[in-house]
Amino acid sequence: MSGFNAAASAVPANTTFRPPSVAQVEIAGFWGDRVDAVASRTAEILYDRCVEARMLEQINPDVPSPGVVIPFHSMSPTGNEFTGATVTTQMFWDSDWGKTIETAAYSLYRRRNEALERKIDAVIDMFGKLQQADGYLSSWYQRIQPGLRWTNLRDCHELYCAGHLIEGAVAYFQATGKRKLLDIMCRFADHIADMFGTEPGKRKGYCGHEEIELALVKLGRVTGQRKYLELARYFVDQRGQQPHYFDEEARARGADPKDYHFKTYEYNQSHKPVREQDKVVGHAVRAMYLYAGMADIAAEYGDDSLRTALDRLWSDLTTKNLYVTGGLGPSAANEGFTSDYDLPNDTAYAETCASVALAFWASRMLGVGPNARYADVMEQALYNGSISGLSLDGSRFFYENPLESRGRHNRWKWHRCPCCPPNIGRMVASIGTYMYGLAEDAVAVHLYGDSSIRFEVEGHKAALTQASRYPWDGAISMRIDVDQPLRFKLYLRVPGWCPRAQLSIDGESVDLQGSLNDGYVIIDREWNGTEEIRLDLDMPARRIYASPKVRHDAGRVALARGPLLYCVEETDNSAPLHNIALSVSAPIEATHDADLLGGVVVLSAPAFADQHAGWDNVLYRGEPSTTTPTSLKAIPYFAWDNRQPGEMRVWIRDIPTGTNVT
Amino acid sequence: MSGFNAAASAVPANTTFRPPSVAQVEIAGFWGDRVDAVASRTAEILYDRCVEARMLEQINPDVPSPGVVIPFHSMSPTGNEFTGATVTTQMFWDSDWGKTIETAAYSLYRRRNEALERKIDAVIDMFGKLQQADGYLSSWYQRIQPGLRWTNLRDCHELYCAGHLIEGAVAYFQATGKRKLLDIMCRFADHIADMFGTEPGKRKGYCGHEEIELALVKLGRVTGQRKYLELARYFVDQRGQQPHYFDEEARARGADPKDYHFKTYEYNQSHKPVREQDKVVGHAVRAMYLYAGMADIAAEYGDDSLRTALDRLWSDLTTKNLYVTGGLGPSAANEGFTSDYDLPNDTAYAETCASVALAFWASRMLGVGPNARYADVMEQALYNGSISGLSLDGSRFFYENPLESRGRHNRWKWHRCPCCPPNIGRMVASIGTYMYGLAEDAVAVHLYGDSSIRFEVEGHKAALTQASRYPWDGAISMRIDVDQPLRFKLYLRVPGWCPRAQLSIDGESVDLQGSLNDGYVIIDREWNGTEEIRLDLDMPARRIYASPKVRHDAGRVALARGPLLYCVEETDNSAPLHNIALSVSAPIEATHDADLLGGVVVLSAPAFADQHAGWDNVLYRGEPSTTTPTSLKAIPYFAWDNRQPGEMRVWIRDIPTGTNVT
Repeated sequence: MSGFNAAASAVPANTTFRPPSVAQVEIAGFWGDRVDAVASRTAEILYDRCVEARMLEQINPDVPSPGVVIPFHSMSPTGNEFTGATVTTQMFWDSDWGKTIETAAYSLYRRRNEALERKIDAVIDMFGKLQQADGYLSSWYQRIQPGLRWTNLRDCHELYCAGHLIEGAVAYFQATGKRKLLDIMCRFADHIADMFGTEPGKRKGYCGHEEIELALVKLGRVTGQRKYLELARYFVDQRGQQPHYFDEEARARGADPKDYHFKTYEYNQSHKPVREQDKVVGHAVRAMYLYAGMADIAAEYGDDSLRTALDRLWSDLTTKNLYVTGGLGPSAANEGFTSDYDLPNDTAYAETCASVALAFWASRMLGVGPNARYADVMEQALYNGSISGLSLDGSRFFYENPLESRGRHNRWKWHRCPCCPPNIGRMVASIGTYMYGLAEDAVAVHLYGDSSIRFEVEGHKAALTQASRYPWDGAISMRIDVDQPLRFKLYLRVPGWCPRAQLSIDGESVDLQGSLNDGYVIIDREWNGTEEIRLDLDMPARRIYASPKVRHDAGRVALARGPLLYCVEETDNSAPLHNIALSVSAPIEATHDADLLGGVVVLSAPAFADQHAGWDNVLYRGEPSTTTPTSLKAIPYFAWDNRQPGEMRVWIRDIPTGTNVT
Repeated sequence: MSGFNAAASAVPANTTFRPPSVAQVEIAGFWGDRVDAVASRTAEILYDRCVEARMLEQINPDVPSPGVVIPFHSMSPTGNEFTGATVTTQMFWDSDWGKTIETAAYSLYRRRNEALERKIDAVIDMFGKLQQADGYLSSWYQRIQPGLRWTNLRDCHELYCAGHLIEGAVAYFQATGKRKLLDIMCRFADHIADMFGTEPGKRKGYCGHEEIELALVKLGRVTGQRKYLELARYFVDQRGQQPHYFDEEARARGADPKDYHFKTYEYNQSHKPVREQDKVVGHAVRAMYLYAGMADIAAEYGDDSLRTALDRLWSDLTTKNLYVTGGLGPSAANEGFTSDYDLPNDTAYAETCASVALAFWASRMLGVGPNARYADVMEQALYNGSISGLSLDGSRFFYENPLESRGRHNRWKWHRCPCCPPNIGRMVASIGTYMYGLAEDAVAVHLYGDSSIRFEVEGHKAALTQASRYPWDGAISMRIDVDQPLRFKLYLRVPGWCPRAQLSIDGESVDLQGSLNDGYVIIDREWNGTEEIRLDLDMPARRIYASPKVRHDAGRVALARGPLLYCVEETDNSAPLHNIALSVSAPIEATHDADLLGGVVVLSAPAFADQHAGWDNVLYRGEPSTTTPTSLKAIPYFAWDNRQPGEMRVWIRDIPTGTNVT
């Protein structure tokens, strides 16, 4: 029923949930607005910005090469001594095209746009012209640095670019039925398979920036060609093996492997074989892409050894290294992880791409089971740390997603390293694929919200429709449409944040306590299409406290409601935000404001503000500030910095009750 | 009575307090231990480290030049594009010699050391051989970059080096009576006066790193030569005038003035004429040296326009930009100031040199008046943010002085930019000059502590001796020794931190409330040498709160007692320090521990610690941590990191009383 060639699956399909295609899901409500913003604005903006950045010139063999537009960035480890040019973000312009094509493809489902489609077709034509007879394709190595291909997989994103173009090709094929880019990328993938592998004569390489692994799984699924899954599995299995490929590759180009800018192969998760890894390390986006690829391979091959490693890594991420926003990777230095519980708020890097990639990984962890703990984190990343990276109108972007700002962190139009805009664009435009999971005899609802999915059971058409104001309201009514009575299992997730859920079918209450399986209630019955399914998820405003090991959040509290994390912005609150403190016992009120930020639920609470009176020309004194009652107003984190610039903070000062203090 | 040539003074001496020479003050007690550490260890360590760094080779014309030992650091403003070598810390090795000589000189008062004196004599001989016939002297421009002298005052520390050598020369002359370096530096100063000034044919330059201004005042005072004061005044007056010298100088060497690494002349306080300045800006040490020089000129010339500017700058520093440690300059990027109330704790730069230089400035602000507000800040800087830079045994150093550490900020042996070790060395070894002030008919006690000062009144010898355990105890008894009855005024400071002071002479209470003049009680009488003066300064442990404008200290409290600020260290406390919170009403106990850190008063209080129980494998949850009673133990900030490495924090989480919360 998943629509893919079952021959590509190495395990019985009935244990594997796969995401639906974008075309199978209709989206309205909260996500509908977001998808509309991408389809009506972001998709075209991405194309225009790529053109402005001179990316067309790089891929078009009919015009002169633009040469090096973005200066080389030295990767020398020696500090003051720069040994010369090594990398530039221009090396991965092909990936920006790949994600731009992918975003455009999904957007075309939503809203036909012939002008945009023609532009994308032209881009694809250029890639077609550029491709060499042997299948090789890289605008950088063909047009800017010829003669150097496959000499620096560690730093230069060559296979990463291929991966993103493959993902774009799959999406564009599914959206338009046009095979041209898909065929181009199959030829390139075939060439890559000829070059890399454990067989004699092949290089035992893999990319310093993971991505191609998950892309090849998509390619395998859409083409039904097992060889692409095999290549993906090879890249996963070979990573971190000894002798280390990046050492040998460095020596082959006359470099000392020790002169690696990032000092440790933890940076690209090749410090040890993937099955031995137990800590999330290095560059956060790379890590998430790797784990997503591993999860695909684990599901496709039923590989428990991978699954065991993934569960260790998942636990390490979610219990020690994840922001409450679903952001990850606190440090700008390595765009990644540092040490456990190191989660600074104002300097949080928390790249948009990292949260997007976490959603990729989490959604793939739902491929077996499913277990709602993965869906909980996927929902956390989707509703908070990822879509915070896109302005409400779809036109401006965040690269970093701090949890606290003094007012100078503002959305930008574009970036020298423009990975995030098309990444959040493609994620939003394909949101339907995250909401549901499909198995032979089952449909799983991972996320709630106004939407409808079409699927087949044993050759018969079926549909599931949710009507809901989620995430603003926890009341969800569902309807099954079938042509004839059909038996299949309906998996409904009960979110981990929900203190009390009630489910009824045709008014008859279902005992959730007894029937929860890893966070999902499973309804196995024959559906005749008349059933009224009603799920009520209590959605009170709630407080969140961080582990006492997180020093940055000590004495602080965050607010949330349903899947949404909240923050306070300067424009809604009277004092500098660090002066506001919330009593542990203060009631929190939730109110829908249809006129605010496109319509959001705001949280309000009585709070206290430190008074500035008496502090003129005094920096320190023996008496604390007096406080005055104030009203705190919080908005969803994803919507911040969509009005006038100002301070923002997620973690608010907490006042414990007077009862447990001297 | 000040020992200087009165002819050099441009204002009536009776309104001017000058510091005594180092030779006039005997030190025991708290500062005696610190001076002993410098005299017995630091002074020789400084010399040895200079030699190890190859500084002798640079100044010795009889051996080959070492060439560039410390690589050039590009000052290009363009980020990735390095335009070539511009500066290196090796350019100011002469200043390291100057401060090392000065530290050695003061140390020789404390403790004869013939071996060290011979080494310093040899260094001076080398500078003598190096000096050119025209008086010019710079080991860098003579030995490493010949032909470039006076081409880049903005960046290259040429006059700064001269200033430090002048200070070393004055100190060495006073300590040993040897004039050689003093004569060398007078010749160089005469050469500088020939090169710089407003007269036709001279360059209207001044140094990018202020220092020579205050040094020339010292030279003028010790030689009685007014011309050196005039040159100092010229440097002060010319700074920031238009057309801007650094613009013209840059163009003269073929550079674009806009390509200034630090982007703004605020960095070196030449953004506007000094009398128009009203914000402390830029590099903190440079700023403090400038203001110290301005204060000298203001006192020597009775220049109220300078004094007005200095009072504005003082207010800006102390009410908006000063750490509670007396540290200043929060940012590593410019080694200086950022924006008002920006006082981060863990990333505080707060260079040791900056606090030392603040003590220089503050002590000079006591030259007129005096007003205890300057002495209060001088004491704050001396006891906390400056001597924190020197280990208790005098052998290891801090460059940065953060107010919070995770355990990885530890004292080092030496530094590529070794400005701080000799700066704290010379300050400690000359502490007596900060404790007292001398005027024609008055002696002022700015700081309390076991010590004795010799001075003269109208040609008659007198002495004042303090017996005290200060800063551990606020009880001070004083004795005046005179050969015959002598009338003069005794100024006694009542510290701003003191909630209650009592003064008695021969058992008779003096009404302090009525007789305080700018924080000093003035006793004008004939002294016959039998008087018993007793001052009791109440010294309770106290809490300090920061202005609500300081976001980093919101919800936090610091502890202090007398002039000493306290901190908690990991080794004395049970939990990660961010888990400890102190109730606003908890009693704080002060106890002397003779065996701890050379003998200190520790502060203890009942507190609460967040419990880690129940948080296994949980990063966020809906309930706050439970807390458990614990005991908090604090030590003086200056003494931290003298035991095993570990966490440290000054600002502790504060629990307000339950009375004002809901």
